[in-house]
Amino acid sequence: MRTPALLVDEAALRHNLDTMSAALPGAALRPHVKAHKCTAIAKRQYANGHRSFTCATLREVEVMADHGLGEDLLLANEVLDARRLDRLVEAGARITLAVDSPETVDAAAASAVREVLIDVRVGLARCGVKPDAAGSLADLARSRGLAVRGVMGYEGQLMLVADRDERRRAVESAMTGLLAAAADVGGELISGGGTGTYADNVWVTEVQAGSYVLMDTAYAALGFPFRQALFVLGTVISVSRKWAVADVGLKALGMDHGLPAIDGAEVLFCSDEHVTFTPADGAAVGDRVLVQPAHVDPTVALHERMYVVDGDEIRETWPVDMRGW
Amino acid sequence: MRTPALLVDEAALRHNLDTMSAALPGAALRPHVKAHKCTAIAKRQYANGHRSFTCATLREVEVMADHGLGEDLLLANEVLDARRLDRLVEAGARITLAVDSPETVDAAAASAVREVLIDVRVGLARCGVKPDAAGSLADLARSRGLAVRGVMGYEGQLMLVADRDERRRAVESAMTGLLAAAADVGGELISGGGTGTYADNVWVTEVQAGSYVLMDTAYAALGFPFRQALFVLGTVISVSRKWAVADVGLKALGMDHGLPAIDGAEVLFCSDEHVTFTPADGAAVGDRVLVQPAHVDPTVALHERMYVVDGDEIRETWPVDMRGW
Repeated sequence: MRTPALLVDEAALRHNLDTMSAALPGAALRPHVKAHKCTAIAKRQYANGHRSFTCATLREVEVMADHGLGEDLLLANEVLDARRLDRLVEAGARITLAVDSPETVDAAAASAVREVLIDVRVGLARCGVKPDAAGSLADLARSRGLAVRGVMGYEGQLMLVADRDERRRAVESAMTGLLAAAADVGGELISGGGTGTYADNVWVTEVQAGSYVLMDTAYAALGFPFRQALFVLGTVISVSRKWAVADVGLKALGMDHGLPAIDGAEVLFCSDEHVTFTPADGAAVGDRVLVQPAHVDPTVALHERMYVVDGDEIRETWPVDMRGW
Repeated sequence: MRTPALLVDEAALRHNLDTMSAALPGAALRPHVKAHKCTAIAKRQYANGHRSFTCATLREVEVMADHGLGEDLLLANEVLDARRLDRLVEAGARITLAVDSPETVDAAAASAVREVLIDVRVGLARCGVKPDAAGSLADLARSRGLAVRGVMGYEGQLMLVADRDERRRAVESAMTGLLAAAADVGGELISGGGTGTYADNVWVTEVQAGSYVLMDTAYAALGFPFRQALFVLGTVISVSRKWAVADVGLKALGMDHGLPAIDGAEVLFCSDEHVTFTPADGAAVGDRVLVQPAHVDPTVALHERMYVVDGDEIRETWPVDMRGW
């Protein structure tokens, strides 16, 4: 196999899918596709009973709908060029847009999309209206002919809080504002959460988790019942007395959470096409090495395809078909 | 224009190309294509008089040769599956491989490639043999029927040394080992250097610079005569009292050198599809914003295409056609 190559451990993937579907069955989970950007994985989530999905980009919505996964797609992000979605709505896809301003309401109203969620800020310095402004934005949206399905609020700042009690308390506090907004807005959906809070956020009606399916070292450190399913396979191309070098560089890894991990080795640094590491048991040129990304989402976005493996056997090859914008 | 979008300022690109070609004309520069991964830019470098190119991956070599840019391609990296290049050599491409071990010599000898450079370690903890081992590896390569064109050594650890005198002294010290290796190895090429040392490394016969053509904030801080030519265009999608959010997230930016920059604003953080920043003069939903990546090479690798612009006018659209492996 050419390296670097994105590998998905089939058994770990299956375990992660089933563990999450047992905890949050059906509509209680709205899987976020940004973590895997792969319709083949979305189809497995669908087969596990989840009919509604979360997307972060217009491209993700487009590709999901084009692959027959358009029963209930939430674009959990603000966009101004919503008319890109018109052809999909006209072809029967159900698409809901997050809105947090008159401008994004206007953009939705000018498109064929007819449903929105009010995006509410719950502590993360990003998008969303303040909770006490949600009701009036919902009124504006309805006045423009849009149906308001409810609210969403992403407590992203709490995903990696290590202490579980502290995380629970912080989530409860963040959700207080979202619930107040939900009461003002109406509608049936209260959408939020992620892999880091999937078990703690009992206030939302649906959780937008994505990373659970492939996992990364940042989430693994929190002790969730999900397994590392994503690796970047590399080949050792150079060995010196003190270190070894494999062909998995920072162009093959999301680096915003820091260095990747290699079992039984210390990773020293990454350059464009190399990872330099110190293997405890030595290494030889030609050895294969499994590199664990620190952040799964941007890692996936760097690869054209993923190989689903059972041990050394490649079972399937899946295109990462939701890349780009 | 859909955002995020990779923009190349045509005038800055032209300035950078011409400035470097004046400093290092013809064969004195072996442009590194890893920085732009775009054959359209390589063709401009070719038109500026550079016939020889540096590549970091087999894919880069393949695409360059397939686009008629195969007069003299150096794969400045160790590979074991050199036979991927056989069809290109048989079609007339001249390809030279870096080798630093008996295994990589074997891989080259087993392929149709007939020329190598001995990769020499000059201070960076990565690939390369120690200078005093270069001669014997060259002998091994020749005994396997390979022509040894000389040596290469990349002083990557010195590219961002801020003080010029200190950088010069360090480069001289690093090149001492490379020159000793060159004397042992023979051949006509002493290849090394990069954008950070292009003016200081007077010991090599050719400089492998790449980043100069597009530039990034890390190199800009060093005061080189190259201009920022690469930007990621974003759209402001959300504004609150204290910050604004644009749709240029860490999936659109190489993050290993840290946060990007926005003129007249402080960048607070990036998430997958968002950059949160505090514009000094305010911002409105729908505003366009130019984001300057901290590291150009991995930024380019995240995009399907780049738009060459002259002010607001799109002059050309170039595919980033050397992505992947």
